[in-house]
Amino acid sequence: MDKLIRENIKNLNAYKVDAPQYEIIVNANESPYDFPMVLKRKFCDEICNTDLNRYPEACFPELLTELHAYTGVPEEGIICGSGSDELIAMINQAFVNPGDVIVSHSPSFAMYDIWATIADARHIRVDDLPEHVPDIDTMIAEACEHNAKLLYMCNPNNPTGYTFSREEIIKVLDAVPSLVILDEAYIEFFGKSGVDLIKFYPRLLILRTLSKAFGLAGIRCGYALGNKSIIDILYKVKGPYNLNVLTQKLAVIALKNRDTILRNLEIFKAEREKAMAFLKALNAFKIYPSGSNFIYFEAPQAEAIYEALIKKDILIKYFKESDRQPGSIRFSMGKPQENQKILAIIKEVVYNEA
Amino acid sequence: MDKLIRENIKNLNAYKVDAPQYEIIVNANESPYDFPMVLKRKFCDEICNTDLNRYPEACFPELLTELHAYTGVPEEGIICGSGSDELIAMINQAFVNPGDVIVSHSPSFAMYDIWATIADARHIRVDDLPEHVPDIDTMIAEACEHNAKLLYMCNPNNPTGYTFSREEIIKVLDAVPSLVILDEAYIEFFGKSGVDLIKFYPRLLILRTLSKAFGLAGIRCGYALGNKSIIDILYKVKGPYNLNVLTQKLAVIALKNRDTILRNLEIFKAEREKAMAFLKALNAFKIYPSGSNFIYFEAPQAEAIYEALIKKDILIKYFKESDRQPGSIRFSMGKPQENQKILAIIKEVVYNEA
Repeated sequence: MDKLIRENIKNLNAYKVDAPQYEIIVNANESPYDFPMVLKRKFCDEICNTDLNRYPEACFPELLTELHAYTGVPEEGIICGSGSDELIAMINQAFVNPGDVIVSHSPSFAMYDIWATIADARHIRVDDLPEHVPDIDTMIAEACEHNAKLLYMCNPNNPTGYTFSREEIIKVLDAVPSLVILDEAYIEFFGKSGVDLIKFYPRLLILRTLSKAFGLAGIRCGYALGNKSIIDILYKVKGPYNLNVLTQKLAVIALKNRDTILRNLEIFKAEREKAMAFLKALNAFKIYPSGSNFIYFEAPQAEAIYEALIKKDILIKYFKESDRQPGSIRFSMGKPQENQKILAIIKEVVYNEA
Repeated sequence: MDKLIRENIKNLNAYKVDAPQYEIIVNANESPYDFPMVLKRKFCDEICNTDLNRYPEACFPELLTELHAYTGVPEEGIICGSGSDELIAMINQAFVNPGDVIVSHSPSFAMYDIWATIADARHIRVDDLPEHVPDIDTMIAEACEHNAKLLYMCNPNNPTGYTFSREEIIKVLDAVPSLVILDEAYIEFFGKSGVDLIKFYPRLLILRTLSKAFGLAGIRCGYALGNKSIIDILYKVKGPYNLNVLTQKLAVIALKNRDTILRNLEIFKAEREKAMAFLKALNAFKIYPSGSNFIYFEAPQAEAIYEALIKKDILIKYFKESDRQPGSIRFSMGKPQENQKILAIIKEVVYNEA
């Protein structure tokens, strides 16, 4: 088998974990609220009237109609996939040859690097400046020097919460020869999308998902927005029936009822501000501003906090200290009473360690 | 954009078609029977009790349990994907470098070639011998000469219906240095799986699907069976949450109720034999034996048959005459009364053209 496997794949680790079983789960930036029961019932009614023996719509026309209504982007500028993951894989298949350069800021979403490895690309991760401000000038310089095929900007950034300004995005778009991928997985929590830049910048591609603000991580529905010319290229490498009929139907219901679902956004933002103020008052961590549904902070007590929470059946995301990063914590907003519980435990750890 | 897109992708055509709207649809080898309503209701009950806001199980443990029960293959030798399509893409990502050779018989499933193009591989399609018998000796010779990474055997073959014997499969496995991919999408209609060969041949990978005999083309659930060593490699390139929770739940229900669902197999086989006898009696076509749920025949009247059926709101698969193939027809078994209708129209065309 060793002679058959590609060299670039050999050292990859398989992601083989069971779904976490904890009372409170805030490690994956999911919504703490399940899809409303009344909409689940609507979905069930539709499924009872849908022929599951037939292949799904190849190009998800109903979904495109709703995504157009939601984003304002013409339907010809939208493509859907099984989460952003499939879209990233498709982008690589369409644009990235082995050895090509991909640029991103760092730290950012871990999957950029894994998919880059699978594409046998060279991924240049440009470390953030102090305060976790992405080093845009170095990103631009690297992209230009190596004629990078792709450049990722995660906005708001996962895990640091950093939000790029419109000026920063334009600066990059104007300077690099690359396809600029603006990952807006968390954009609804921030509100300032780059979507209106699409018509001026044919090399801009925006990634979105229903996994976060729409609270539908389970159904795996991501979408990309861009100029027709770039979306047409992605259609060339799209599997003919990449989005199953169940996901298509449920996503359409979610988008049609977006006003109801996105009402939670205000709760998340208020909770985030409250939690942020609470943590700052502890005066014990390096906390970063967040434009998303999570909070990120660096702390000498990071491991102790993680362990104390696990003991109480609560799962947060803990980043071990490394060459690139001090020990740090990311946790997304749960329900208000869950957040209270988490904050109280963090406070306890801080006092005990002091 | 032209400078960014990969050369191998440029000439690919996007698959942009709407789902067909006809009274009778037998062009895609789907089951004509929808998933039983009682099982749809079971699915709906489960969805009402499932947190859709959480990421799905990354490694589909319940599904592996059922697939193990169904196939006898240990769970560590099974991986699932969004249809065989995603699995083929994963196989290429794990094993195929640009320029590597992939061998298949021809004609066969069209997606082997498209995914090979996306992988920038060299796909050697070995034309069938007369009577559409795959030319195994030439396939072996090509695979050995070019050190092929992959060799496809589609069993039963789509579109010709050819079934490989156990001896033929073993002959290939013993002779080539390649990963041998036995595509058993239609195996339930034939009955003679190569699954027991897995323990003797670590380079054997079997592709299966719930789209055909299980009548679930809409949910996109494929799976691959093989030795742990090969499945472990595929897990390295699998997207972390590649199979959404809806598909996982529905597939588990289907597999648990496989005795009920697969009862239709006998109807399909009986219908196929009846249709085959009917067409042979017309004495007008070159008809090929089929181990699947469809019938394939070459006919000078192929286009006329296709047109006559379309006029009656019936869609079959028509292959235009080409360098590789005379004009031909493939249609899968519909419900008995649908098959009668189709056959009567074909007979009419033959008589009118005579």
